[in-house]
Amino acid sequence: MNYHLFGESHGPAIGVVLEDVPSGLELDMAFVAEQMARRAPGGSLLATARREADAVEIVSGVFEGKTCGTPLCALIRNTDMRSHDYEATRWLARPGHADWTGHLRYAGCNDPRGGGHFSGRLTAPLVFAGAVAKLALRPKGVEVVAHIRELAGVSDSPVDYAHPDLESLRALAGRDLAVLDETAGKAMRERILAARSCGDSVGGVIECLVCGMPAGLGCPDFDANVESLWARHLLAIPAVKGLEFGAGFRFAGMRGSAANDPFYRDTAGCVRTRTNNNGGINGGITNGMPLVCSVVIKPTPSIALEQETVDMRTGEPARLRVSGRHDPCILPRVVPVVEAATALAMQTLLASGGRA
Amino acid sequence: MNYHLFGESHGPAIGVVLEDVPSGLELDMAFVAEQMARRAPGGSLLATARREADAVEIVSGVFEGKTCGTPLCALIRNTDMRSHDYEATRWLARPGHADWTGHLRYAGCNDPRGGGHFSGRLTAPLVFAGAVAKLALRPKGVEVVAHIRELAGVSDSPVDYAHPDLESLRALAGRDLAVLDETAGKAMRERILAARSCGDSVGGVIECLVCGMPAGLGCPDFDANVESLWARHLLAIPAVKGLEFGAGFRFAGMRGSAANDPFYRDTAGCVRTRTNNNGGINGGITNGMPLVCSVVIKPTPSIALEQETVDMRTGEPARLRVSGRHDPCILPRVVPVVEAATALAMQTLLASGGRA
Amino acid sequence: MNYHLFGESHGPAIGVVLEDVPSGLELDMAFVAEQMARRAPGGSLLATARREADAVEIVSGVFEGKTCGTPLCALIRNTDMRSHDYEATRWLARPGHADWTGHLRYAGCNDPRGGGHFSGRLTAPLVFAGAVAKLALRPKGVEVVAHIRELAGVSDSPVDYAHPDLESLRALAGRDLAVLDETAGKAMRERILAARSCGDSVGGVIECLVCGMPAGLGCPDFDANVESLWARHLLAIPAVKGLEFGAGFRFAGMRGSAANDPFYRDTAGCVRTRTNNNGGINGGITNGMPLVCSVVIKPTPSIALEQETVDMRTGEPARLRVSGRHDPCILPRVVPVVEAATALAMQTLLASGGRA
Amino acid sequence: MNYHLFGESHGPAIGVVLEDVPSGLELDMAFVAEQMARRAPGGSLLATARREADAVEIVSGVFEGKTCGTPLCALIRNTDMRSHDYEATRWLARPGHADWTGHLRYAGCNDPRGGGHFSGRLTAPLVFAGAVAKLALRPKGVEVVAHIRELAGVSDSPVDYAHPDLESLRALAGRDLAVLDETAGKAMRERILAARSCGDSVGGVIECLVCGMPAGLGCPDFDANVESLWARHLLAIPAVKGLEFGAGFRFAGMRGSAANDPFYRDTAGCVRTRTNNNGGINGGITNGMPLVCSVVIKPTPSIALEQETVDMRTGEPARLRVSGRHDPCILPRVVPVVEAATALAMQTLLASGGRA
Repeated sequence: MNYHLFGESHGPAIGVVLEDVPSGLELDMAFVAEQMARRAPGGSLLATARREADAVEIVSGVFEGKTCGTPLCALIRNTDMRSHDYEATRWLARPGHADWTGHLRYAGCNDPRGGGHFSGRLTAPLVFAGAVAKLALRPKGVEVVAHIRELAGVSDSPVDYAHPDLESLRALAGRDLAVLDETAGKAMRERILAARSCGDSVGGVIECLVCGMPAGLGCPDFDANVESLWARHLLAIPAVKGLEFGAGFRFAGMRGSAANDPFYRDTAGCVRTRTNNNGGINGGITNGMPLVCSVVIKPTPSIALEQETVDMRTGEPARLRVSGRHDPCILPRVVPVVEAATALAMQTLLASGGRA
Repeated sequence: MNYHLFGESHGPAIGVVLEDVPSGLELDMAFVAEQMARRAPGGSLLATARREADAVEIVSGVFEGKTCGTPLCALIRNTDMRSHDYEATRWLARPGHADWTGHLRYAGCNDPRGGGHFSGRLTAPLVFAGAVAKLALRPKGVEVVAHIRELAGVSDSPVDYAHPDLESLRALAGRDLAVLDETAGKAMRERILAARSCGDSVGGVIECLVCGMPAGLGCPDFDANVESLWARHLLAIPAVKGLEFGAGFRFAGMRGSAANDPFYRDTAGCVRTRTNNNGGINGGITNGMPLVCSVVIKPTPSIALEQETVDMRTGEPARLRVSGRHDPCILPRVVPVVEAATALAMQTLLASGGRA
Repeated sequence: MNYHLFGESHGPAIGVVLEDVPSGLELDMAFVAEQMARRAPGGSLLATARREADAVEIVSGVFEGKTCGTPLCALIRNTDMRSHDYEATRWLARPGHADWTGHLRYAGCNDPRGGGHFSGRLTAPLVFAGAVAKLALRPKGVEVVAHIRELAGVSDSPVDYAHPDLESLRALAGRDLAVLDETAGKAMRERILAARSCGDSVGGVIECLVCGMPAGLGCPDFDANVESLWARHLLAIPAVKGLEFGAGFRFAGMRGSAANDPFYRDTAGCVRTRTNNNGGINGGITNGMPLVCSVVIKPTPSIALEQETVDMRTGEPARLRVSGRHDPCILPRVVPVVEAATALAMQTLLASGGRA
Repeated sequence: MNYHLFGESHGPAIGVVLEDVPSGLELDMAFVAEQMARRAPGGSLLATARREADAVEIVSGVFEGKTCGTPLCALIRNTDMRSHDYEATRWLARPGHADWTGHLRYAGCNDPRGGGHFSGRLTAPLVFAGAVAKLALRPKGVEVVAHIRELAGVSDSPVDYAHPDLESLRALAGRDLAVLDETAGKAMRERILAARSCGDSVGGVIECLVCGMPAGLGCPDFDANVESLWARHLLAIPAVKGLEFGAGFRFAGMRGSAANDPFYRDTAGCVRTRTNNNGGINGGITNGMPLVCSVVIKPTPSIALEQETVDMRTGEPARLRVSGRHDPCILPRVVPVVEAATALAMQTLLASGGRA
């Protein structure tokens, strides 16, 4: 399921074209809206005050309520734009943002308003695409769940990668903060509000699990292994600056005897591993265990604090306070985006018959 | 510069086909041999005793000592094979290895000897390909260096991402352990030998920097951004289970005010950033600062300690001691592999004119 | 310049997402409209009576009248739909159409109204995309022209592939029938009207030339040679059932001594060929001569005459008269489509730096 | 099944890397040799006197006689090289060849001996790859056959595309000239020898059919339709300058009522078409009828007759007689190459689950 995002934050609309959608899929728009709502801003002190209806218009690829199999285009009109917020600072490169690199790459022609095509707003059509992918995965018994593993130094309770408590993880979808441990959640909220109160922002780590994927999908080769496929999808999310499969960077301090996941035959006769440090992937191929990947999300670069920068036209030094409405922490809203990117990767893997 | 690896650890030969090699490149075989030697086993207590000449035969794509521009095929014959080492345990899935997933994926037909196509030995032609890429990057002033950032819990001294000491990093290429801090190196050696002495293994983190890449290369889109391109190349290396750009997972504990890299104009009139937490990439596009990526390498899964596993044909429980000759820690030999994968990614990026 | 078409003939809208558009391109909407008008139906006895404004809405990728470099989405609303025309024959496979194969491929879920996504109407956004490509090619001195080489057995006067009369070919863009020889044009018109009068249709051959492409672009390899790239673009046009480069099928009756294009140095010192039977391409690489490709367009499958067919649900035999409004000959409208597909291929080739 | 050819005509070896080979395929080397022999030179007055054993070394991807599923590399050493044949004319561009474009593309660095990587000799590993594809297609009941439809103006008896006589077509594989009509074959032989006797060469058309492909494979979209996929594979064969599906260019003189293939239900209850002018493909998707494609092969450009050309270093005019050993007509040897390219395309289509 290839997807092609388009749109600028303050242009007429944003959207996505989805290719290779399985035909005959009932497009459950209530489910789609639910997924969109999880990402949508507003409604919480933790997020930006910008409100967007994010009403999705299905432009193509759906007939009589079902997917046709032909390219599905979904359009989301931009409505609550306040471009004047950005006019004054148009040529000042916001640190940590893509203003400067976009200016270089597109020779000064990219749309600077609200980050243009680089805006986090483009994750709205991505969540739409992910919702379609989830609908495609559902009849195959594949489920994607995610939670905030760490936020501003506060950790959620750890998930057992070999035997994840799916029930609890599923239940997080409705919450404003997808955290298993309530106490940790409370501490995270405090850190977000503390950052907000001083015009600053915080980052964290989101952990995503996929259950129900068959074993034996993928391939060791370059560009065709499961880790590579999944990584490509996750690194397309703005603010993701790293990722790890299973134990990931924790492997650096482990010995082989602890890191290796011993094989055994379970009571149902299936070969499984005792632990799941490898996150369900060996040699780029799924092994039948839950797939586990975590991504790090950097602190929102848009902060109210004054920062040093330059004027992009001249290189002249300048001071900048990013005004406008911004999240002090985007992790709550990125959780469904990570799930969406993951669902797209998994549907692609399944549809490819194994070669990612 | 696409590459296509082929070969099995104990088959007739391994090798690589390189496409899109720039024509007219003087193929400096001394340099190539030097790179190959950095990865080659033998010569140190830290590594496996298997010795391979790793003599490279250039089969195509080179004429009168220069690259033709047409596909370059390089062949490395397998010589020091002791297949009988593997015969007894042929059907026992080695924990942490791809035996089981390869068995599933290829319906029991993959070559089990020494891991077959999944063997780390396939990194030899990868290093060859990287050497060609380095030769292509050299006249463009692009340099790739790497060091062991962490090994078995011991950390090397940190590199200043904004002003890396290239001289010192370059000097590591000749060492058996690519570590800046001698004391740390000594401690790492001890940990490796300690693990070896109890039939175990250790992992770590390798950090790679690229200097000299022009600003403005890449694209925000899925599958065309620099992080995605680089990740694809790095995740093709066996044992890599995670990666991070710039500050990476350290972003999780930072505030935006510290994480953002402020822009300034340097004395030469160039726009640069004070810090380089973003590892030289914003919005998927290079910003002109050094590019920084680290990968985690899991402990060598081949260990002498007895492990629990199953017979792949029957699922019957079994106990396994991996015999054969194995590295207690592969990091020293993976350093040039990480550089090679990175050089290939960079050459691809440059040749593409910016769309990764 | 990748493009992704979407939409169904009788759905809400059709459109295209264009990736890798050069930034800073003045989007000359008068030129775009002119190109769209060349393909639009109506206005002539030779074509369908269906009238569509084909008003293009630029949804993204353009800012202050110039391309941003980010994905450009263009939307064309469907307005003049008469779906009831199709209701009665919904399950009867129209011979020569994709009703049956679409039914199989999409398990009966594709939109049957007016051919759905298979409709020739999808060539409207393709012409839009081609217009953008032409705007990108213009400053590089690359020009794409086409004419009807043959229609219903009547041939236009031949073009000298080595020295095409660009002036005359350019002048055809404004005509209802892109034919160099007026007498031939008159005969073609008669054949179209004759076919129309008996509820039938006719086909023909469109020849396309590209002038100004630099020599040395392309590559001998699979999927990367110029002929392959161009063919991929042309075969995406519905009704194209074959193509030939330069002398093409006429090579079958030639001897090598006549077929080979002798090299000479022209007065400007450039190496050129005396003849251009190879259509400007040797070994998959441009040689600096005009590029020449012809495509055959099959007769419009939608005819008023009664035809034998089956009911797709049951396989029961049925008789079918295709009602609705259809062109007795689509060649006049396909000329700009062939130019558009060609312009997209050429822009892609140029932007790739030579590897198609 | 992706393939990557490598090698130069007079370099150490030529070969191919095959990816996505199904695992567990018995590699019937007698069948492979048979296919290779069909393409091999020597043994007939009709072809070049160069003799090559074309012994294939399987370097990887095969274990215990069966394919592993991992990349299969096959190597063919070059043995009967007479490079001195080419030395004298090294810098003279052979008309109709890729010497000049290769010189431009690779900045004078490509291997000029015998055409280097552009040599028709590269079709040897292509036929090998096709033989593997045929072995993969066989258990699926898919068969690929080809014959010479036209040679130097002489036509073979026409094949009924709706009901091809597979028996007769199969029987052609062992003949020196794959022609159904003996009388036509005799006339073709005469034309070849006549051309040879005056140092000239002739071309022709090869027609290829595929039987047994399931209906419903493919997709209307750019780069994913069956015609595009097949064309990409065929246009990778040197000397192919055009192709047509089913009636192809004959559509130009037909009316829709004759061109459309009426649907009916056969006695077995399958939906079929009465005629098969569309060559088994509608809207880029297979319809269950035999797939038909023809390619035009230009006359061998290497001729003994003196030709006008230039010195590539200086542009100075020159006269050239191509010495060496060359086929006066390559069609007999290209028949198995067309089949090989087709088999690779079909196996790719089947393995993709329908999206080409």
